[in-house]
Amino acid sequence: MRKAAHNCEGKMLRYLWKSLKRWRAIELGPIAQVFRLDRSTPVTRNGGRRVRQAGARHRRWLAIPAAPASQPYAPTGAVPAPSQPPAKELALIVGVGPGYGYALARRLAREGMAVVVAARNAVRLDTLVAQIESEGGTAFAYGCDATNEASVTGLFSHVAAQHGVPDLVVYALQSFGPGLTIDVEVPAFEEGWRKNCLGSFLVARAAARAMLLRERGTIILTGSTSSLLGRAGHLNLAVGKFGQRALAQVLARELWSQGIHVAHIVIDADIHEGQGREDGGPQSDPEHISETIIALHRQPRSAWSSELDVRPWNEQFWEHC
Amino acid sequence: MRKAAHNCEGKMLRYLWKSLKRWRAIELGPIAQVFRLDRSTPVTRNGGRRVRQAGARHRRWLAIPAAPASQPYAPTGAVPAPSQPPAKELALIVGVGPGYGYALARRLAREGMAVVVAARNAVRLDTLVAQIESEGGTAFAYGCDATNEASVTGLFSHVAAQHGVPDLVVYALQSFGPGLTIDVEVPAFEEGWRKNCLGSFLVARAAARAMLLRERGTIILTGSTSSLLGRAGHLNLAVGKFGQRALAQVLARELWSQGIHVAHIVIDADIHEGQGREDGGPQSDPEHISETIIALHRQPRSAWSSELDVRPWNEQFWEHC
Amino acid sequence: MRKAAHNCEGKMLRYLWKSLKRWRAIELGPIAQVFRLDRSTPVTRNGGRRVRQAGARHRRWLAIPAAPASQPYAPTGAVPAPSQPPAKELALIVGVGPGYGYALARRLAREGMAVVVAARNAVRLDTLVAQIESEGGTAFAYGCDATNEASVTGLFSHVAAQHGVPDLVVYALQSFGPGLTIDVEVPAFEEGWRKNCLGSFLVARAAARAMLLRERGTIILTGSTSSLLGRAGHLNLAVGKFGQRALAQVLARELWSQGIHVAHIVIDADIHEGQGREDGGPQSDPEHISETIIALHRQPRSAWSSELDVRPWNEQFWEHC
Amino acid sequence: MRKAAHNCEGKMLRYLWKSLKRWRAIELGPIAQVFRLDRSTPVTRNGGRRVRQAGARHRRWLAIPAAPASQPYAPTGAVPAPSQPPAKELALIVGVGPGYGYALARRLAREGMAVVVAARNAVRLDTLVAQIESEGGTAFAYGCDATNEASVTGLFSHVAAQHGVPDLVVYALQSFGPGLTIDVEVPAFEEGWRKNCLGSFLVARAAARAMLLRERGTIILTGSTSSLLGRAGHLNLAVGKFGQRALAQVLARELWSQGIHVAHIVIDADIHEGQGREDGGPQSDPEHISETIIALHRQPRSAWSSELDVRPWNEQFWEHC
Repeated sequence: MRKAAHNCEGKMLRYLWKSLKRWRAIELGPIAQVFRLDRSTPVTRNGGRRVRQAGARHRRWLAIPAAPASQPYAPTGAVPAPSQPPAKELALIVGVGPGYGYALARRLAREGMAVVVAARNAVRLDTLVAQIESEGGTAFAYGCDATNEASVTGLFSHVAAQHGVPDLVVYALQSFGPGLTIDVEVPAFEEGWRKNCLGSFLVARAAARAMLLRERGTIILTGSTSSLLGRAGHLNLAVGKFGQRALAQVLARELWSQGIHVAHIVIDADIHEGQGREDGGPQSDPEHISETIIALHRQPRSAWSSELDVRPWNEQFWEHC
Repeated sequence: MRKAAHNCEGKMLRYLWKSLKRWRAIELGPIAQVFRLDRSTPVTRNGGRRVRQAGARHRRWLAIPAAPASQPYAPTGAVPAPSQPPAKELALIVGVGPGYGYALARRLAREGMAVVVAARNAVRLDTLVAQIESEGGTAFAYGCDATNEASVTGLFSHVAAQHGVPDLVVYALQSFGPGLTIDVEVPAFEEGWRKNCLGSFLVARAAARAMLLRERGTIILTGSTSSLLGRAGHLNLAVGKFGQRALAQVLARELWSQGIHVAHIVIDADIHEGQGREDGGPQSDPEHISETIIALHRQPRSAWSSELDVRPWNEQFWEHC
Repeated sequence: MRKAAHNCEGKMLRYLWKSLKRWRAIELGPIAQVFRLDRSTPVTRNGGRRVRQAGARHRRWLAIPAAPASQPYAPTGAVPAPSQPPAKELALIVGVGPGYGYALARRLAREGMAVVVAARNAVRLDTLVAQIESEGGTAFAYGCDATNEASVTGLFSHVAAQHGVPDLVVYALQSFGPGLTIDVEVPAFEEGWRKNCLGSFLVARAAARAMLLRERGTIILTGSTSSLLGRAGHLNLAVGKFGQRALAQVLARELWSQGIHVAHIVIDADIHEGQGREDGGPQSDPEHISETIIALHRQPRSAWSSELDVRPWNEQFWEHC
Repeated sequence: MRKAAHNCEGKMLRYLWKSLKRWRAIELGPIAQVFRLDRSTPVTRNGGRRVRQAGARHRRWLAIPAAPASQPYAPTGAVPAPSQPPAKELALIVGVGPGYGYALARRLAREGMAVVVAARNAVRLDTLVAQIESEGGTAFAYGCDATNEASVTGLFSHVAAQHGVPDLVVYALQSFGPGLTIDVEVPAFEEGWRKNCLGSFLVARAAARAMLLRERGTIILTGSTSSLLGRAGHLNLAVGKFGQRALAQVLARELWSQGIHVAHIVIDADIHEGQGREDGGPQSDPEHISETIIALHRQPRSAWSSELDVRPWNEQFWEHC
């Protein structure tokens, strides 16, 4: 009896929440305020003590709150004095998670690059940074919501001020919620697009703006099987990943001639994250994918690539997400 | 002197407006309100006198304001009594503008279909409806903001109640604002995506939900060269159109087996809108494109097409927008 | 014991034949004669009594033996006097077999076109011609080896002399021998390419040469899933069909602006030939595919299509041959 | 007057030659001999003195004349005793010409690989071999007509006997004769296909057969813009290159799971051959393309690529041959 009441209550709450997440608009004459409620997205605030000491120049940025953010955070790793030029190449990976992002960061550090890793929750990246430093590498972790313009702009300002302009920027975020199209809710549809496409636009635009001054640099966008094929149940992923591929094509045509190498890597694979697939199927070792990222970054500019696929030797072709 | 002051004021206003259009978020504990200001989008309200008489059932829908909307509007054309089954096939075109949409509506009416045309400003469609009726056809105009979920849901409820479930739904909206990626502002980027992709999702999802009960119907999404190629300066168009193509692929795989024919038509052409191109170049006659829409709709189901291109005989291949 | 001897003999014969089928070259100074043995390909000779009466002009062609050919053959159906202009549109289908070719011929005849059907063995087409004529249509059968230049040139000369220039030419031949690449023998590899690609070149070139004088006409090349995807075990089919797709793209770019509509139809389906699939799976009714061929031929020229796919509503996408 | 006569004679000769190049067939009951005349293709015979000493095993191969061949030739470079295992990785490049092939050979040698280079005229490769050896590398030149089965089989037997199974095989041949489709002659059409497609099949099949025993190795097929796009005037190139791409896709699906990495590199560029383009346009440095060949060969097998493009940073996309 109580359970039935509880169920009913839960149903009403879900209905209410679904309704609150809908876009609404309040008309104010020729102007409208468009809004909806969403879950708060906690993003680590890049305002730790050590960073604040880095200079007054940085303070202005801190005044603009990057996003719905929470815990103050001191980026891990030694901060180099901004006045001296960076001795190492600098890589920035946005959307770093276990598996692909972690392995790429470690591999780039072993390649001799200073690595900035960014994720919404930068605290979680501390272990990664510690690990890289224990291996003799250089790494810094920052909080960033890649789907939020101010947060991305802030990240790039911060990185430029503290570490210089990145030589290599990788967008590593991917988001997938399966479901048939008729069942897909608008907030989920938009959320998928924001993570798979809008974020890559924000990051690539910021990277391009920074790199154009020096007329060099590499921007790599990470795609998947769903960048090329819209399969049943994969709407949320495919719409964003197709859009990201469009972005990669446009950027390559706009930026290559300015000296900036834009490339799109299509990962047609399940990526190993320290545990095997439930079905025991084949997986790509993210360190192996990283070899190809490095090869792309190292390509001499008379023979650049704009797109390539990767998958394990023992995997079916184009059967993945 | 006054001009300089005026310029300066204009600059400040533009800066202010640009800033107001940015997404902001107010945190309310675990929940955040995400909002930004936008220009008010006037959408014709489908609440005219004649329609309101159509039944109490409709009233509930009217109570939910579809979108930032303005002038009340009585849909043009005779409304059939909802109780009697529709004698004609019913077509619904969303995003009807001069050129493609207008010609398609006229052509479908001549084919013997009752045609519902929807655009943000339904008042502008009165002439089209009158023209179709003067040619002996049947047409109705409705206001709908295709990028607004409530507006699209409302349109389909209304059409279902007044005219029945459409046999053919065509998404005809396209939006393009040229510009290099580094100069593209987030609101323009999102706006392009909403018109080129989100709208087609909302319309196709509503169409699918309605058609699934009868296990038949045709949904056609209108793409362009930028559905296949991301060219320099075409970011806003390509990101949305690539996404719409993903949607078309996913929908075809999900809906064909339910009896619903989903097809993607790639218009690699400038469309004639009553005036020639400035450069005197070749154009597609939209009535001619309509022949192919009809052929797709008429395809027997053991040999359906999912994608095709159209362009004039004297046009370059894949050189268009 | 005898069986073993027999086996051994068979093995030797197979080995010998395999060896004889290999290309050889005899050098004659700066010139070489390239040759190999092959099975004789019997092609119906279009030299029946009625045709020979048609005029001295034709005799010259008859003097050039079309190909390794055999039985003399009088084309079925009444031959119109070549002096009077054709009252009906004329269609020519090359590579007519049960299923697709047969159904297309019948459907085009019902559409009011005079239909010329060509296959290596024209005698087998008599029933088809009789059937079309019993339905009130007009049809003629000719022998032609589509992979042999003289045979194709001869066919077109003959058709031009007897029936006029075709308005629609369809290349309908497909050949597939499965097998892993390491096991594929050169003669089989070449044979697949000749039927799937060389033949379509010969036919399309002859059609283009004839149509260019009138600046109108439609050429349709028939492709399959393997025109787009090279799948394991499908080498012989895919190499030819990819090549044919290249031909279709080149031809469209060269001929559209001359008024000739070239289109490539990708049949991603098993085609019904009067009996269901062994696995009970879905099939395309070839009459239904023919509807799309007609729609392509009827497209007004300001909105031509260059490529489209067809498959049954209940079939998987791109899982076919 | 004499000139006119000369012209007339030339015309007759051209006509005669064109006619002799046509395929003919002599019927011998159920068997036919298919033949045509062609220019003799001189291929360096790999039967030099030093090689003949290498063992009786080799003699059987020499007994089968590889192709219309001419001058006996001793492969350049020191021949290692076949009994000792190769200390270095072995690369084999077939279709080596100035530009791409030359640079790739030098680059692979600098990478520490023993390099076997093959072309029809192996004598011309002596300078290349000498250059590589002067730089401390190891190289051998062989004569091979890549479009001739016996010649390719012979090359692989010879290489296996003398140097071992190659770790990396690159098919580097490309042939292009421009022209509108209606003007393309069958021998030219076939010749283009033989060089761009049949040869890559022969080489890849031989490589696969050799590599399968060891379950490792890399096969790289070299494509161009015309592997993806059939442009006006590019028939002969596109038909073969599309076909080669089909081969690459089929091979990847068949061989990856056997441990053999097959990849297709699409060179969308003009390649520098020691002199700039006539129009001063951008060119790819073939040494730079070689970096990507090496990167492909070095990819760890949990993240292999099957296809990628290369072009200069300052080149238009997909505007090349």
